[in-house]
Amino acid sequence: MTYLKTLAPAVALIALPSLGLAQDDGPAAGVNASTDSVFIFNSLLFLIGGFLVFWMAAGFAMLEAGLVRSKNVTMQLTKNISLFSLAAIAYYLVGYNLMYPLGSWSIGSDETGGYLGILFSTAKLEAVGIAAEAADDYGYASTGSDFFFQLMFCATTASIVSGTLAERIKLWPFLIFVVVLTAFIYPIQASWKWGGGFLDSQYGFLDFAGSTVVHSVGGWAALMGAIILGPRIGKYAKDGRVVPFLGSNLPLATLGTFILWLGWFGFNGGSQLAMGTVGDVADVSRIFANTNTAAAGGAVAALILTQLMYGKVDLTMVLNGALAGLVSITAEPLTPSLGAATLIGAVGGVIVVLTVPLLDKLKIDDVVGAIPVHLFAGIWGTMAVLLTNAQSETNPDGATFMGQLLSILIVAAFVIVTSGIIWFILKVTMGIRVSEEHEVTGLDSSELGMEAYPEFAKG
Amino acid sequence: MTYLKTLAPAVALIALPSLGLAQDDGPAAGVNASTDSVFIFNSLLFLIGGFLVFWMAAGFAMLEAGLVRSKNVTMQLTKNISLFSLAAIAYYLVGYNLMYPLGSWSIGSDETGGYLGILFSTAKLEAVGIAAEAADDYGYASTGSDFFFQLMFCATTASIVSGTLAERIKLWPFLIFVVVLTAFIYPIQASWKWGGGFLDSQYGFLDFAGSTVVHSVGGWAALMGAIILGPRIGKYAKDGRVVPFLGSNLPLATLGTFILWLGWFGFNGGSQLAMGTVGDVADVSRIFANTNTAAAGGAVAALILTQLMYGKVDLTMVLNGALAGLVSITAEPLTPSLGAATLIGAVGGVIVVLTVPLLDKLKIDDVVGAIPVHLFAGIWGTMAVLLTNAQSETNPDGATFMGQLLSILIVAAFVIVTSGIIWFILKVTMGIRVSEEHEVTGLDSSELGMEAYPEFAKG
Amino acid sequence: MTYLKTLAPAVALIALPSLGLAQDDGPAAGVNASTDSVFIFNSLLFLIGGFLVFWMAAGFAMLEAGLVRSKNVTMQLTKNISLFSLAAIAYYLVGYNLMYPLGSWSIGSDETGGYLGILFSTAKLEAVGIAAEAADDYGYASTGSDFFFQLMFCATTASIVSGTLAERIKLWPFLIFVVVLTAFIYPIQASWKWGGGFLDSQYGFLDFAGSTVVHSVGGWAALMGAIILGPRIGKYAKDGRVVPFLGSNLPLATLGTFILWLGWFGFNGGSQLAMGTVGDVADVSRIFANTNTAAAGGAVAALILTQLMYGKVDLTMVLNGALAGLVSITAEPLTPSLGAATLIGAVGGVIVVLTVPLLDKLKIDDVVGAIPVHLFAGIWGTMAVLLTNAQSETNPDGATFMGQLLSILIVAAFVIVTSGIIWFILKVTMGIRVSEEHEVTGLDSSELGMEAYPEFAKG
Repeated sequence: MTYLKTLAPAVALIALPSLGLAQDDGPAAGVNASTDSVFIFNSLLFLIGGFLVFWMAAGFAMLEAGLVRSKNVTMQLTKNISLFSLAAIAYYLVGYNLMYPLGSWSIGSDETGGYLGILFSTAKLEAVGIAAEAADDYGYASTGSDFFFQLMFCATTASIVSGTLAERIKLWPFLIFVVVLTAFIYPIQASWKWGGGFLDSQYGFLDFAGSTVVHSVGGWAALMGAIILGPRIGKYAKDGRVVPFLGSNLPLATLGTFILWLGWFGFNGGSQLAMGTVGDVADVSRIFANTNTAAAGGAVAALILTQLMYGKVDLTMVLNGALAGLVSITAEPLTPSLGAATLIGAVGGVIVVLTVPLLDKLKIDDVVGAIPVHLFAGIWGTMAVLLTNAQSETNPDGATFMGQLLSILIVAAFVIVTSGIIWFILKVTMGIRVSEEHEVTGLDSSELGMEAYPEFAKG
Repeated sequence: MTYLKTLAPAVALIALPSLGLAQDDGPAAGVNASTDSVFIFNSLLFLIGGFLVFWMAAGFAMLEAGLVRSKNVTMQLTKNISLFSLAAIAYYLVGYNLMYPLGSWSIGSDETGGYLGILFSTAKLEAVGIAAEAADDYGYASTGSDFFFQLMFCATTASIVSGTLAERIKLWPFLIFVVVLTAFIYPIQASWKWGGGFLDSQYGFLDFAGSTVVHSVGGWAALMGAIILGPRIGKYAKDGRVVPFLGSNLPLATLGTFILWLGWFGFNGGSQLAMGTVGDVADVSRIFANTNTAAAGGAVAALILTQLMYGKVDLTMVLNGALAGLVSITAEPLTPSLGAATLIGAVGGVIVVLTVPLLDKLKIDDVVGAIPVHLFAGIWGTMAVLLTNAQSETNPDGATFMGQLLSILIVAAFVIVTSGIIWFILKVTMGIRVSEEHEVTGLDSSELGMEAYPEFAKG
Repeated sequence: MTYLKTLAPAVALIALPSLGLAQDDGPAAGVNASTDSVFIFNSLLFLIGGFLVFWMAAGFAMLEAGLVRSKNVTMQLTKNISLFSLAAIAYYLVGYNLMYPLGSWSIGSDETGGYLGILFSTAKLEAVGIAAEAADDYGYASTGSDFFFQLMFCATTASIVSGTLAERIKLWPFLIFVVVLTAFIYPIQASWKWGGGFLDSQYGFLDFAGSTVVHSVGGWAALMGAIILGPRIGKYAKDGRVVPFLGSNLPLATLGTFILWLGWFGFNGGSQLAMGTVGDVADVSRIFANTNTAAAGGAVAALILTQLMYGKVDLTMVLNGALAGLVSITAEPLTPSLGAATLIGAVGGVIVVLTVPLLDKLKIDDVVGAIPVHLFAGIWGTMAVLLTNAQSETNPDGATFMGQLLSILIVAAFVIVTSGIIWFILKVTMGIRVSEEHEVTGLDSSELGMEAYPEFAKG
């Protein structure tokens, strides 16, 4: 996903022949129609991509509700629908304009943009019923469709955090963290790449749909939270044994994975940012195919590897393998061949199988495996850009090893520090962890007074 | 959503420059392509919007299956898939042509339309493989796509009713009511607004996607059913206490809410009825963004309010808050700013939190809270049109207080009377309520002989 | 769904006026836009259709997880996500090019195509960022979108098999069968119709979206597996009684059905293969409307019939009735009127209600009813083409009784023989059935060591 405003001139160039003709005394209608169609196709891509990525919020909710114990399911559901809702408002109030600081492309609205002084400038849509000519002013797609699409990415970042910290974090401190993450942390670092900032302009950082900008950011924030919050009671026994806490509803977890897989077509495909030319729609198609095969590669890798390592297949690893495959291809879903995409995804699946136990050895308690999936596979995916889109004489805009690595590290440092500070402040002020008694009883009855499955007897 | 046939001339006006050119000796191909693209985009909007609204049928099924007790889940699922299927057939056989009585726009089919005498005129699609020129005759989108889209709205109305009356109504009388509702009650009142009838032409009633035409109609029908059917046994104790009957599966209810939220993008966005111009696609984009933020506003309002009122968050209220936010924005999702949309949705969330207990005080037993969500928030949303789209000198087509209020009341009176009569007839003829014994045992085993979770022990 | 490559010339004909103009000194821009828009619309149809059919994989997973007993749910989920992933890779590595043997339309890639020697030619996408002129070379839609769409059909075939053989087949032999099915069996027979093969050219076989090519193929493979595998222990008592094994989670099964219903709009609608003209989008609209009403017809037929036959409605029959309605309309979703489509679907629903017990009499143990739904209704749907699209003087391209029948039989013979051989080889080499002890204990704990609902007590 490239900075939208910098794309606009490029689009103008593509449209130049039409625009040139429009100034002739020739057939303006046909030519305008062409320009209009491009605008409509681009906006439509954002709308379809946006509702698919919205659907990922449901995917995270189901995945996490399926992987926690039944005594904490209502809380996990509450966190997920609340975090999405708060992210939507925080991104509207602050995040969107913070992410695109060089000036809003919402010409016709009353805002002026500019990095300073717009901290609390809310997002504004274009006017109702804009004229066709406005398409030139408004860029190459409607502001509303862009806002809708970008918002979903911001919310995804927050969804990643909720799974790791499940079953022990208090509701309100978590939600406050989500507001800070979606209003400030995510948009600021995203602006460095997608807002035309220094990672984009100076480091030549390539991260098509956000292996780093979205997934590793969520992963780092989750990791800091997990460290500061500590593991669940009883997870790591005194004798060093790791006690398995089983997911309470694997069909839900599987449903969540399928939802995420589906939503990812919008996540990666929509990040082409344009669909109004033959080249763009063919690229979106490549991205759909590659995204799918990377997920398949990740799932099959985990399928085979768990069979080989443990003598039996582990469904939760297969699910996380598919998700890791998706994260891995997210930094570059366009340039790989189908074969390369499958392998990039497969490595993601391997990473998950190998690093989930590693986190447990470090006593970092990640309830759903979000850190291996989103952070570790996100780093892998970002570096894997070099496999199919490295800088060369024939590809001067390709990625460089140092550009990718430094960008990963800069984003990491920023999110580790900022999220660490926020978690710490929350911990020392209001406290972030439920009482030991509430944790043992379960958050649903103790904190919310509402069980997810009130009629099903415990086995 | 405006009357399609009246829109056609407007579209023709927009297309006039092209059409004018088409009569020149100039480049017909380019111009035809323009006209064709508009037709294709509009039809595509209906198809995408339609499958998203279809998906809402699944959302209602999951929401309701999650909120009833486990002994009634199979019955609730059976009602939901059956009501959708029957609505599809009833709307095809009767409702569609009843709703657009001024003459079918299905030129080329053998029907003549007209309000009288078409009671049993079935919907007819255009011929296979129509020529491009036919686009002018067929209006601005394909009949098939319009039928598909409109059908889903009709079915939604029926889905609203099933939740309120759960756990005690007999299957077949309920389904008979659904047939009458979707063949007659919904289409007749919908024609008053969307069929170009008197609410549209004389009262200047504005109801973009149906806060009143769809949601309050479902709500009134549900309310009448709830009153005539009476509350569930044991719900209202003799000492005045309201006994909480807990939903049996909150992940399902949450999934249902996310599905409805997703489907609502099609519900409201598709009701723009056109996507083939820059202005239309930008408006659809505004609608997507506003719909999303209204849902978020409703959810956050319920989140905060239940915390303040009860000292803990109530997930089911958050879910219903999101839905109420969606209903609230449905009457006017286009003109509000993002901020206004968020607040309109938030008020919807507040309404739900405050009126759910109110219904219980009145001993009106609404199992899933559909009356607060769809009726009360629907009324609010219809009046809230005045906040951002009121009639004025500069906005002569805006809503008036009396126009909105009278339209709400007229629709209310019609649905209260007609659905009341139907419920009453069903009650005195075949009976609408299962026996006390069956209700206590649960409808699944007593009425259907099939439990939803046969292996899970009751806790 | 017709062979893509043979369609390309037809599209070219439609586009001829534009292309002709493009060679004039006239307004090239407007005309190119026209050609481009057609390409974009067609590709977009494949992308939307493709992600909807992808979603069907989740539908099968939920349907099957809901209909098996809780002790086998994790295994069923594992099979479903694994089979989709393996199908994706197998179709990429072998199947896609095997299915379109007459030469790849992926001009610009380095493959030459040809039926012989391409057994292991992998699918290749077009280059990144193709120029607008390439639209002529690449056919009328992007290769990536076509591959994405076709892959989902192949995977669907495999999903059908998993349900029938649930609760007793070993994981790995099943997955090996899936690889053979999706790499060879499905693509070879599909090429006979959709690859421009002899069923298409010599028999005039009509199967729009695959009642035979997809559904009956899955059904035959499932039937052979069920026969060779044998019924579950205890299903058929020695006294001849059929023991009902109840589905463990009917909301999941219902969700799965709704997902499949939704996905089917992509399955049938996308099989129009084009959306870039007024006629095509109107046809896609017809297909959406007909697909929906056929499902409704199937559900209502099963609803009424189970009430009449058994005195109470059977939800699982209603679900399978809807699915049978969908399968029935799949061979010809375009030409029927809404009324005919409803009836064609209703007959499908009747077939399911009548043949599920029939299979049990034959002691063929089909856990989810996939054989009645996909095979029997698939045969019915394929013959039902004759009702609305039979060959005649005015319709020389219509179906003939013998053409349809022989095609069904040829495909049947091929799949019965090939899948029978594969099942047999798997049986005598590695064995396809879990041990009796494991089957009784349940596959989840014995084969995978992971229960789907570890906390819910058995009732």
